[in-house]
Amino acid sequence: MVFWKKLFSNSDTVATSETTEAGNGLLNSDSDNSDLPQIVFSTDRELDLYELEELCDRVGWARRPLKKVKKAINHSFLVVSMWEVKNKKRRLIGFARATSDHAFNATIWDVVVDPTFQGRGLGKAMMKYAITQLRSEDISNITLFADPQVIDFYQRLGFILDPEGIKGMFWYPD
Amino acid sequence: MVFWKKLFSNSDTVATSETTEAGNGLLNSDSDNSDLPQIVFSTDRELDLYELEELCDRVGWARRPLKKVKKAINHSFLVVSMWEVKNKKRRLIGFARATSDHAFNATIWDVVVDPTFQGRGLGKAMMKYAITQLRSEDISNITLFADPQVIDFYQRLGFILDPEGIKGMFWYPD
Repeated sequence: MVFWKKLFSNSDTVATSETTEAGNGLLNSDSDNSDLPQIVFSTDRELDLYELEELCDRVGWARRPLKKVKKAINHSFLVVSMWEVKNKKRRLIGFARATSDHAFNATIWDVVVDPTFQGRGLGKAMMKYAITQLRSEDISNITLFADPQVIDFYQRLGFILDPEGIKGMFWYPD
Repeated sequence: MVFWKKLFSNSDTVATSETTEAGNGLLNSDSDNSDLPQIVFSTDRELDLYELEELCDRVGWARRPLKKVKKAINHSFLVVSMWEVKNKKRRLIGFARATSDHAFNATIWDVVVDPTFQGRGLGKAMMKYAITQLRSEDISNITLFADPQVIDFYQRLGFILDPEGIKGMFWYPD
């Protein structure tokens, strides 16, 4: 666990046990062999916003003003990023963040995984990492708003749809 | 608008135009006549937590540790309270709060109106006040999780259920 520590400034940048659960040969977080690609997770919110924008471009999201993205990241309770680290270079391949009242509730937003890294369990690993981080802060009610095509994905992670008939609702300006 | 200004320390304690929309004789926010009951709204988060607990008791909510409630209020983006002011005394009759990333999204939690004040349009007025406050901060995506019995209430306020199939999901600890 030496190599990635050099790359990340934030001490809470850890490859937790969740990373190994997604193990498929990519994950070598306990190895110092920098020739093998590694997948690491971070809660460091000092992200290159252009790199994040590129990631979001790759999944076809509408672009948003970087100034507002920066503000949203700064005011999120949790920011999670996922990186491929290879030959001492790191590449952003996943992102998610959560708003929270720091006490009871958190809501996860902007979950994105690089399409070329999808289907390997990495999105699941990143979400488990996020849940672990929120649970470590004693947040017990973790919520999100899921697009129809990812409802199954979240259900497999233990998220419940409309529990007791509770419905997600949205208000938009006219 | 003199009377309630004396009662509230926070300068953003205002009875907005929304208050008058719920007018039914209770709302006299432009009057200095303190014999008539007035309904006023506030964003002041310096609330008496015991008074808030009493209000929540009246709607049958499970009690929560006040220390956590205080933390949640402190870390909410918006805290809205509704008061009946009569004979220079104020009484907490409504409450809501919202978490947010301060940029794109807000999620409204803990909406409560004193049962003896329900059915007069005051919950609607309080929610409109909350929406106005969030809109004034340029938040465009206002969300909430609605119990089945209040879905109609929020729909009348313009909230949309499961837009484009987006579903609210919850994760709880085992």
